[in-house]
Amino acid sequence: MADLESLKADLGDITVVTDPAKVLMRSRDFYWYSPVLKRQLEAVCADLVVEPRDEAEVIRTLAACHRHDVPVTARGGGSGNYGQAMPLKGGVVLDLSRLDRLIAIGLGRVRAQAGARLFRIDQGCQEHAQQELRFHPSTWRMGTIGGFVAGGSSGVGSITYGTLRDRGNILGARVVTMEARPRVIELRGDAVQQVNHAYGTNGVITEVEMPLAPAYPWVDLMVGFADFMTAVRFADALARQDALTKKLIAPVAAPIPELYFRPLRSRVPEGTSVVLLMIAEPWIEAFRDFLAAWPGTILLERAAGDPKRKALPIFELSWNHTTLHALRIDPTITYLQVLYPPPAHVEHIEQMYRQFGEEVMIHLEFVRFDGQIACFGLPIVRFTTENRLDEIIRYHEDHGCPIFNPHAFTLEEGGMKQVDRTQLAFKRATDPQGLLNPGKMIGWENPDYAGMSRQSYLYKSLETAG
Amino acid sequence: MADLESLKADLGDITVVTDPAKVLMRSRDFYWYSPVLKRQLEAVCADLVVEPRDEAEVIRTLAACHRHDVPVTARGGGSGNYGQAMPLKGGVVLDLSRLDRLIAIGLGRVRAQAGARLFRIDQGCQEHAQQELRFHPSTWRMGTIGGFVAGGSSGVGSITYGTLRDRGNILGARVVTMEARPRVIELRGDAVQQVNHAYGTNGVITEVEMPLAPAYPWVDLMVGFADFMTAVRFADALARQDALTKKLIAPVAAPIPELYFRPLRSRVPEGTSVVLLMIAEPWIEAFRDFLAAWPGTILLERAAGDPKRKALPIFELSWNHTTLHALRIDPTITYLQVLYPPPAHVEHIEQMYRQFGEEVMIHLEFVRFDGQIACFGLPIVRFTTENRLDEIIRYHEDHGCPIFNPHAFTLEEGGMKQVDRTQLAFKRATDPQGLLNPGKMIGWENPDYAGMSRQSYLYKSLETAG
Repeated sequence: MADLESLKADLGDITVVTDPAKVLMRSRDFYWYSPVLKRQLEAVCADLVVEPRDEAEVIRTLAACHRHDVPVTARGGGSGNYGQAMPLKGGVVLDLSRLDRLIAIGLGRVRAQAGARLFRIDQGCQEHAQQELRFHPSTWRMGTIGGFVAGGSSGVGSITYGTLRDRGNILGARVVTMEARPRVIELRGDAVQQVNHAYGTNGVITEVEMPLAPAYPWVDLMVGFADFMTAVRFADALARQDALTKKLIAPVAAPIPELYFRPLRSRVPEGTSVVLLMIAEPWIEAFRDFLAAWPGTILLERAAGDPKRKALPIFELSWNHTTLHALRIDPTITYLQVLYPPPAHVEHIEQMYRQFGEEVMIHLEFVRFDGQIACFGLPIVRFTTENRLDEIIRYHEDHGCPIFNPHAFTLEEGGMKQVDRTQLAFKRATDPQGLLNPGKMIGWENPDYAGMSRQSYLYKSLETAG
Repeated sequence: MADLESLKADLGDITVVTDPAKVLMRSRDFYWYSPVLKRQLEAVCADLVVEPRDEAEVIRTLAACHRHDVPVTARGGGSGNYGQAMPLKGGVVLDLSRLDRLIAIGLGRVRAQAGARLFRIDQGCQEHAQQELRFHPSTWRMGTIGGFVAGGSSGVGSITYGTLRDRGNILGARVVTMEARPRVIELRGDAVQQVNHAYGTNGVITEVEMPLAPAYPWVDLMVGFADFMTAVRFADALARQDALTKKLIAPVAAPIPELYFRPLRSRVPEGTSVVLLMIAEPWIEAFRDFLAAWPGTILLERAAGDPKRKALPIFELSWNHTTLHALRIDPTITYLQVLYPPPAHVEHIEQMYRQFGEEVMIHLEFVRFDGQIACFGLPIVRFTTENRLDEIIRYHEDHGCPIFNPHAFTLEEGGMKQVDRTQLAFKRATDPQGLLNPGKMIGWENPDYAGMSRQSYLYKSLETAG
């Protein structure tokens, strides 16, 4: 057992939280989305939370923890939902939310401290040439940019710009290593991939540089369809409109909207599937002309300046928020993360839709994927047993639809990050004692694990990227 | 024969040019790119050129010409190359280049008079939130926005935003009809398609509203490859990088660069094929990492601020300028316009490359096309006879590669615009006497022609657009 009193003494004037209720709260994220993680991670709790005010305090904290052999798990807004920032072995939760400065904004890029919240970055970039982040998770109000890079992958805007794994969607990252004398490393270009979606296992990100997009006034829309597969085909065709600027195309099958979209369900006729949309205002006429050829009905339309849009932007019904709204109404449901591979994604979707019916209620997010239109799914699952959940996962995988398992807390089992030799070598260089977020990288504790790993990963191996 | 003296009297204080040399010059465009058009159009000449200063003068000119039964052919910068603005039946050339005001700039959109030159629009939009046109022809210095809409189709930037036929790439157009009392019509949304690529046969465009993109600092690059098909595969893979912002991806087969790129050929080793590129500065590091996996050598790199770039932007070696550089060295060559349909465009290219060798020297422009990466070709052809040119065209078409024939001056034979009933009905409403740019729309003189028309058109029929 580490000597926490000596550690605290070493931390000096750095803010430390020890109140057990607060420490427990900040040891958790939205892991309870998953009944599996809920069972596995319920007892996880840090010994204390440290709140550095700047990078110098991050360095002092890491040096002190290294000296006392105390694990450190970095945390941003705590809006992950695979336990990314949950301290499996206790020790320190390093809350980076006070590192919240915007450092520099230029045309096409912003540099910010890791703890800056996504909506604050967008607000700040609005003032410089009317820009905003290219994409963000639905947890835009709560999430931090460092947390997004360390534990996210895609989001609202991925229909235009792809996902975090794509070259050019993270321009740079500044990382502090976990050593007796922590070093500060600036990673640029492909080197950023080492800390991208690595859950903070190989360095503490203190700054990131992200690309920007124009901050158009976005019009929120919800379009209703009597038939779900028609909604999917509409969404796919809209995604292919190269000139029509959009930020969100999310088909949601009935009965999700009428059952779970509490704020909007009075607008949803029984049995209606919907497509949630964000269209840039200059292209709204083009959108209306496009819609005219489809049997879709606009159930909701809110212009960019609409105060109701501020209270509930449509993207807060999309991505992981769809599941959140469902969980609020029915805490027994859970969800999956699916890739329906292009170019046959519509056929894949239809097969799963026919197979499972309302047991697996489909919610899709259209994205750009290797230069093609593709489709992620975040279906809502009527949960019965862990065995049945495994069966559903296996059926998807056996039929060509990879699952990025949100019921696993390790990098490898989540299915996004492949822990290859390059990744392990980097971890050896940045965290030789294995003190950063221990237990999340199976390959670290068991270097042979890579041999057992699945074929398909969302993030490419660092050895074969090219 | 019309009474031109009475017409001139009716025009009053509107500027009229009658000097025969000047009238001949402004009756022509780059039609001489094509040996066929050179033969067919050599003798074409207007009777006089009218230079209205504003829309009121356009209206007065059209009313006067209508009264005297004089044909009117509208003209912008004269940078077309299918004789789009050449007055087949004489009469008046209506030079719109004095209507050159920028009317309004907002985030994502600009409204300008038709005669505004493309580079002036870009300059003006730079100052408002650092924006520019989404794409433009290589004749950016000379071409006008009205001419681009009336006679162009795609260009530098189409790799990101598609082409003018795509919904949302023209937001609006203001059009004056050819009637005793000319009306002014504002077309918006799909209605714009009626005058898009219609050569001014159905109304005189006086204003357009175009979408804008961020005006990133663009880095010009020329990357050399020993093998052309490797250059093509590199270009295709780069086009699929969703996060890497680019404006130009143009592979050019050897020996085009060494023979014809006079300003740069000292940089091109013998037998080298090149890819011309414009990459936005914030993503240049990502580009370098991407390039590292390919056997390509950077032969030229010019940062956005490089004065040499101002003198010769790389895009002035691309699109129709590639052919222009070749014609300057060898006036006997000509060219074609090909679509290599996705997703098998690379295979189509390889087949044509192997089939024709240096008789058809391939120059490609990657674009977005219906949500996919696709490829136009502007191959340079060693011209021998019109029969052989027809054979080459037929071979392409028989092997699944539609040709948009640049050796034809009518809308229909050019292969881009389908003159359907909607298009004809609009012409009847806007130009009942058939005085606007006569001879360019076969379907007007021969309504049965549509029945004979080809299967594939770049611009979709207005009846089936959806």
